[in-house]
Amino acid sequence: MTGTLPRLGMVGGGQLARMSYQAAIPLGITLRVLAEHHDDSAALVAAGTELGSHFDAAALEAFAATCDILTFDHELVPPDLLAALEAKGHVLRPSADALLFAQDKLHQRTRLQAAGFPVPPFAAVATAAEVASFAAEYGWPVVLKAARGGYDGRGVWFVHGEAEAAEVIASAPTTPFLVEALVPIEHEAAILVVRAPSGQSVVYPLVDTVQADGMCREVLAPTVEDARTEAAAGAIALSLAELIGVVGVMAVELFVLEGGVLVVNEVALRPHNSGHYSIEGCVTSQFENHLRAVLGWPLGRTDALARAVATVNVVGGPDAADPRANVARVLALPDVHPHIYGKEPRPGRKLGHVTALGDDLAETRTRALLAAAVLSGEQA
Amino acid sequence: MTGTLPRLGMVGGGQLARMSYQAAIPLGITLRVLAEHHDDSAALVAAGTELGSHFDAAALEAFAATCDILTFDHELVPPDLLAALEAKGHVLRPSADALLFAQDKLHQRTRLQAAGFPVPPFAAVATAAEVASFAAEYGWPVVLKAARGGYDGRGVWFVHGEAEAAEVIASAPTTPFLVEALVPIEHEAAILVVRAPSGQSVVYPLVDTVQADGMCREVLAPTVEDARTEAAAGAIALSLAELIGVVGVMAVELFVLEGGVLVVNEVALRPHNSGHYSIEGCVTSQFENHLRAVLGWPLGRTDALARAVATVNVVGGPDAADPRANVARVLALPDVHPHIYGKEPRPGRKLGHVTALGDDLAETRTRALLAAAVLSGEQA
Repeated sequence: MTGTLPRLGMVGGGQLARMSYQAAIPLGITLRVLAEHHDDSAALVAAGTELGSHFDAAALEAFAATCDILTFDHELVPPDLLAALEAKGHVLRPSADALLFAQDKLHQRTRLQAAGFPVPPFAAVATAAEVASFAAEYGWPVVLKAARGGYDGRGVWFVHGEAEAAEVIASAPTTPFLVEALVPIEHEAAILVVRAPSGQSVVYPLVDTVQADGMCREVLAPTVEDARTEAAAGAIALSLAELIGVVGVMAVELFVLEGGVLVVNEVALRPHNSGHYSIEGCVTSQFENHLRAVLGWPLGRTDALARAVATVNVVGGPDAADPRANVARVLALPDVHPHIYGKEPRPGRKLGHVTALGDDLAETRTRALLAAAVLSGEQA
Repeated sequence: MTGTLPRLGMVGGGQLARMSYQAAIPLGITLRVLAEHHDDSAALVAAGTELGSHFDAAALEAFAATCDILTFDHELVPPDLLAALEAKGHVLRPSADALLFAQDKLHQRTRLQAAGFPVPPFAAVATAAEVASFAAEYGWPVVLKAARGGYDGRGVWFVHGEAEAAEVIASAPTTPFLVEALVPIEHEAAILVVRAPSGQSVVYPLVDTVQADGMCREVLAPTVEDARTEAAAGAIALSLAELIGVVGVMAVELFVLEGGVLVVNEVALRPHNSGHYSIEGCVTSQFENHLRAVLGWPLGRTDALARAVATVNVVGGPDAADPRANVARVLALPDVHPHIYGKEPRPGRKLGHVTALGDDLAETRTRALLAAAVLSGEQA
C-alpha cells in the first residue's frame, strides 16, 4: 500500500473480515487482517494476514503498529486490551468505550434503560436465590445470560426454576450474570445503522429474522411490520448509535411484541449476520459502508435493489458436509448468490450463507431455503 | 484450500485478475495468481500470489503444477508455451488453440473470414509496397496492425502513404503485419459471451463503447442500437464462441456501420474492459461467470439490474495523480461505484474505473464522467 490511503486493520479473521476484505478490494483498500489461525475464513483470502491471538496484548500492539485505524470482526478483544491500545494512541473504530456496549450485556442493559430505550425487565444476579427473587416478580421461566463472552446462543439459558439457575451459575462461576424476563415475542427483527465519525448516519431497511437454537437462520426483506414500526426501529437505531458514539456498523436485534411494540434484544458493533443480505440486496453493502465509516468517508445509499430478498445461513450439520462440494449445484438456481466462508465443516458452525433476490418474498424465501439445503448437503 | 474444489490458477496479475479474485471469494474459491511483480494489481490483494514471468516456461510449469485448471488475465503467454503446458497434461481454459485466436490478429482475421463472419477487407503484408498495393484497391489511409503483441491501441497505426508504411514496418521488423481498410464507423459497440465446457453459453447485453487514443474510455448501456442489431451482435458472439470453442468470457468489439451493419473489430478471450459494468450492472458479473465457466459450473443470468449503466475508465494523466487519493470524494456521489486497481499511477495507464447506475443514460453517463474526473484528479 502506498501512503495515499490510511492503513486499515481488522482484528479477527472470521467471515465478517472475509466479506469486509472483499468489499475493500474495489475501493483500493488493502485491508490487513489479524487472524488467530492460518485457515480462518479471512486468512484464506487476505494477502498479508498476520497471525496472532486477540487475547495477546503483544500481538495486538504489533498489529496496531502497522495500521493507522483498527476495526473489528468480533467483540472478543478484552476491554482492558482495547483501552490499552487507545492509551498508546492507536485509533480504534468503534472505540473501546463503544465496544464495551456490545461486550458486556449488563453494561448494555443498564445504559439502554437509563437512556429510556425499551428493554425487557432485567437484573444483575450472582446467586440462584437472586434469580428466584426476580422470577417471583416476573414469573418462570426467565432468561439467564452471561454478561460477557456469549454469541450465537452461547451464554444464554432459559431457566425454569432455582435449582436450574444454580446449575447454570455453577457452570461458569467467574462470569457476571444478568436475568431477564421472558417477553411475549410475536416476531424478531433487526435493523442496521452505520455511523461515520462526523455523525453522518444511514439506516438499512428493517428485516425480519428467523432464529433457531439461538442462531440467526433467515433474514427476510421486506419486513412484515408496518411503516410505523419500521420507522420506530430506525429511530431506536439512530438514537442508540448517537448515544454510544459508534463508528461503523451497529446492528440492533429487536423483539416485536403485540401491537408493534419494540424491545431491544441484542446490539452488535460490527457488520452483522442480519445485514449479509445487503451485499446483493442494497445499493451499498454493510461491509462497504463499515469500511467507509471507519475511514471517515461518505456513507453510501442503503436502499433495496429488489422487491424481495432472503438470506439463509448454511450451518454445519451432523455429517459435517462441506458446502464447497455443493456450490456448483446451487448456481443452477436463478438469482441465488452463495457465500462460502471456507471454514472447516463442524456441526452447528456457520459455514456460509445464500442470498436470493426476487419479486415475491414467499417464492424468494423458498429459493433461498432450497439453495441453503443443497449447500448443506441435505438434498444429497 | 481443502480438496473439495478444483484448484484454479490465473496467469497474470493485472486488474482482471484482481476483479476475478474478488468474485472468487464468495464462491469459496481461493484463486491462485501468477503475477510478474509484487505490486501488480492482483498481487496486492490475493493471498499466496506466486511471482513469475508469463514468458518463463519454468515459472509457468511450476505454477501449473499447483493448479488443476489454468485461466488467463491477458493474452501475452507465448503460444508455444501454452501448447507445451497442454502437452504436459495441464488443463487450460480457454485452450491454447482458442487463445491463439486472440493472440494473432492475422490468424483471427483469416479464420473469421473463412467462417463467414463480417470483417473489414484485410491482407497480410510484409513490405510497404504490399501496403500500397492494398491501398490502391481500398484507398488511403489504411490501418496497419502488428499481428501479435498489441493492446489498448498499441500495435495499430493509421497510415496515409507508402513512406509512412515503410517507417512503421521498419520500426518493428520481427512482427508480421496485416493491413485493413478503414471502414466508415458510425458507432463502436461490444458484446460479451460466456461459454462453459458443455457448450452452455450466455450473452450479456450489447453495450456502446467510446474509444480515445485506441483505448476504451466509456461503456454505456443500454445501447443506442435497435433490437435487430443487438440480436445480430449476439448471434455473431454465440457463433464465434462455438467456432473457437472458447471456455470463459469472450468479448467481441464491433464496428457498427450505416444501417446497423456489423463488422468484427477485436476479439478477446478473457474478462474485458467492456464488461466491467456487469459487476454492479448485471445479475452475474463477467468475472463470476468467467470463473463458473472455467470450473465447468452452471452460468449465471446476465440481465441488467438498472435501466442505465455507464462505466468510465480512470486513466493516468500527465501529472500522475493517484485515484486512491480521491476515492473518498467520489463516494459522496449517489450510486457511483469506484474500482481502484492499486497500480502505481503513470500517464496513459488504466488505474481504475467507475460505474454509475441510474434510470436515464444521459444523467448516469454524466455522473460516471464526473466521478472519473474526480478520481483522475482533474477536478482538484
